[in-house]
Amino acid sequence: MNFVCTRCGKTAPLDTLSPCCSCGGLFELDYTPPAWDPRLIDRSAWNIFRYRAFMALEGEAWREVTMGEGLTAAIRLDRDVLVKMDYMTPTLSFKDRGASALVAHMKAIGVKKCVQDSSGNAGVAVAAYCARVGIGCEIYVPEGTSPNKIAMIGAYGAKAVVVPGSRDHCAEVCRAKVREEGAYYANHVYNPFFYEGTKTYVYELLEQLGRIPEHLFIETGNGTLLIGAVKALEHLLACGAIDHFPQIVAIQSENCAPFAETLRQGSEHLVHIKPRPTLAEGIAIGEPARADEILGMIRRHAIRIVTAPEEEILPARAALARRGIYAEHTTAAALAAYRRYCDLYGPAPDSVLSMCSAGIKSDH
Amino acid sequence: MNFVCTRCGKTAPLDTLSPCCSCGGLFELDYTPPAWDPRLIDRSAWNIFRYRAFMALEGEAWREVTMGEGLTAAIRLDRDVLVKMDYMTPTLSFKDRGASALVAHMKAIGVKKCVQDSSGNAGVAVAAYCARVGIGCEIYVPEGTSPNKIAMIGAYGAKAVVVPGSRDHCAEVCRAKVREEGAYYANHVYNPFFYEGTKTYVYELLEQLGRIPEHLFIETGNGTLLIGAVKALEHLLACGAIDHFPQIVAIQSENCAPFAETLRQGSEHLVHIKPRPTLAEGIAIGEPARADEILGMIRRHAIRIVTAPEEEILPARAALARRGIYAEHTTAAALAAYRRYCDLYGPAPDSVLSMCSAGIKSDH
Ligand SMILES: Cc1ncc(COP(=O)(O)O)c(C=O)c1O
Ligand SMILES: Cc1ncc(COP(=O)(O)O)c(C=O)c1O
Ligand SMILES: [Zn+2]
Ligand SMILES: [Zn+2]
Repeated sequence: MNFVCTRCGKTAPLDTLSPCCSCGGLFELDYTPPAWDPRLIDRSAWNIFRYRAFMALEGEAWREVTMGEGLTAAIRLDRDVLVKMDYMTPTLSFKDRGASALVAHMKAIGVKKCVQDSSGNAGVAVAAYCARVGIGCEIYVPEGTSPNKIAMIGAYGAKAVVVPGSRDHCAEVCRAKVREEGAYYANHVYNPFFYEGTKTYVYELLEQLGRIPEHLFIETGNGTLLIGAVKALEHLLACGAIDHFPQIVAIQSENCAPFAETLRQGSEHLVHIKPRPTLAEGIAIGEPARADEILGMIRRHAIRIVTAPEEEILPARAALARRGIYAEHTTAAALAAYRRYCDLYGPAPDSVLSMCSAGIKSDH
Repeated sequence: MNFVCTRCGKTAPLDTLSPCCSCGGLFELDYTPPAWDPRLIDRSAWNIFRYRAFMALEGEAWREVTMGEGLTAAIRLDRDVLVKMDYMTPTLSFKDRGASALVAHMKAIGVKKCVQDSSGNAGVAVAAYCARVGIGCEIYVPEGTSPNKIAMIGAYGAKAVVVPGSRDHCAEVCRAKVREEGAYYANHVYNPFFYEGTKTYVYELLEQLGRIPEHLFIETGNGTLLIGAVKALEHLLACGAIDHFPQIVAIQSENCAPFAETLRQGSEHLVHIKPRPTLAEGIAIGEPARADEILGMIRRHAIRIVTAPEEEILPARAALARRGIYAEHTTAAALAAYRRYCDLYGPAPDSVLSMCSAGIKSDH
């Protein structure tokens, strides 16, 4: 197994410390999972690595790393909607799916310390898993990130660096550090192993429900859940475990919707937008690093984009809480967007929304 | 199935709205689960009700109620210690195990609204599950309860009433309301169904590990986890699924340790203590309502009591975080007490500690 550049096709060994190809292109893995077979699920593993037969993984490092992420239930919100309780994880967000796989890779290749940039939740997750296996860690977050997330990063013993300006600027500052100091870039968007973890969102749905729901609503900032889900669905389709692709709906904030704007303009590449402030801090990404890859998926699978109306986020958050689910603002945006989708396209029966992060994380 | 008074033996029907027997004694259930058989686990249920063959339950109400509580992993802290990640639940504490079972009972008998008193987490859990099924709810918490917990109670649409004074006084104020206004008392300590939920902590360990660890460290305020665990272990022992009782260690705060003091004095009944403030707010219970029942269990099973040194709580919290686990202060007290236990009794290999509640809940 190797890294392969998504731009020029050059390969690099798995133990490379470079965050991307020398041409600047991002890596993917030349890995094809075996055909889906429920008998390959390791039901004795109470974590995402129960699906490791279908994940690119090196050796047994995951055993030291795992903290029991995954195995989150899909419960009923209403007649048409299931919500997957993906905040019931070690650091209270779905990012633990990706971070556990990423840190297992880092452990396997002997990384001792790393830097990362994040809108918050991914940084919390990487900090926690690095702590678990003794990897030093520095997390760059944009100003305005929820103080609770910053506090969690610090609690795990990582250094949280708050960068003035936008989320995109924060990423640039961190990448400059990677270039200039050669720090290992434990970035959830750059590193292909992160998606090996987020793939399990889909495998788990299939194990739990015995089918894939007709509509998958997926919040999309950098697209780490979207890309993982699409990869897993393409795998399932290729081996005949499902007979059609579900309707995927990518959710953006109406105040920061580069993919929605790109489709509106009919542009082939991502158009430039000016992000405005939003309560949905987790998806406030103006320039997703894998934009071309995501645009390719959008075209291949007729993925729809819908934006969450800003003024509907708080009412949606209250509506979730009145059904027993206290979710962070970004997650509430998913419900707001689902409702918008139904207004635009009519009813969407057999839908599933991810409850990506716990409410208390964005309260302070 | 009936309620039976633990004091006078009188029975009451399951649909009674009284919190206890007319003699003042608390109820238990005249229910004996069938012999443990792993084939009776419903592996299609991704929640605690997978063990419902061994739980007293009425009908199918649990299906509407469940939010995917349970299925928390037991992960390694160090060579001797496993920690069970019991904060990975809908409201971020193990109380969801009990609250889901309690609210399923309330739903089954048609309760429309209720009151409860809590040091915080149980109130959060009951408020969430009541919201899920549309039961009105008022939660009494003592002053000093973490503001995050109070905010969560409010988010679920329940009314949080902050009562000046101690936790024990708060319970008295709530009980006066039950007596005077006839409100339904959805109390986790009084209601036997709550323990049907907390029993699953032990069943889950057995399913996950294929055995029961030699040492179970259980934090004990009112003892809702302790009683549930002992009931499940007594069941497993009675039907031969385990061949001996593990060493249970009940953990109290050194600043509020009525059971430790009772044993020290060799008294048959609970002695009166004066609680001092502690960071371990979740176990700061001076007068547990089921004290006699717990004292009986302590004697029957040679349960040991150990107290968490106050000044060791923050260091223990940091130590957990450095292993990737950010837990609330009360939970950190469990690790502090575990260390104390090893100082007193020597090494305790094959131990399991519960990570009862998420760190962020006690940060504000
Ligand atoms: C709560 C929440 N939901 C969704 C997302 C979206 O993830 P991504 O940016 O990878 O698309 C994030 C990212 O941080 C998040 O924190
Ligand atoms: C975090 C935490 N641990 C342990 C306990 C102890 O539970 P109990 O009082 O039922 O013994 C509580 C109770 O609220 C709690 O919140
Ligand atoms: Zn290249
Ligand atoms: Zn009686």
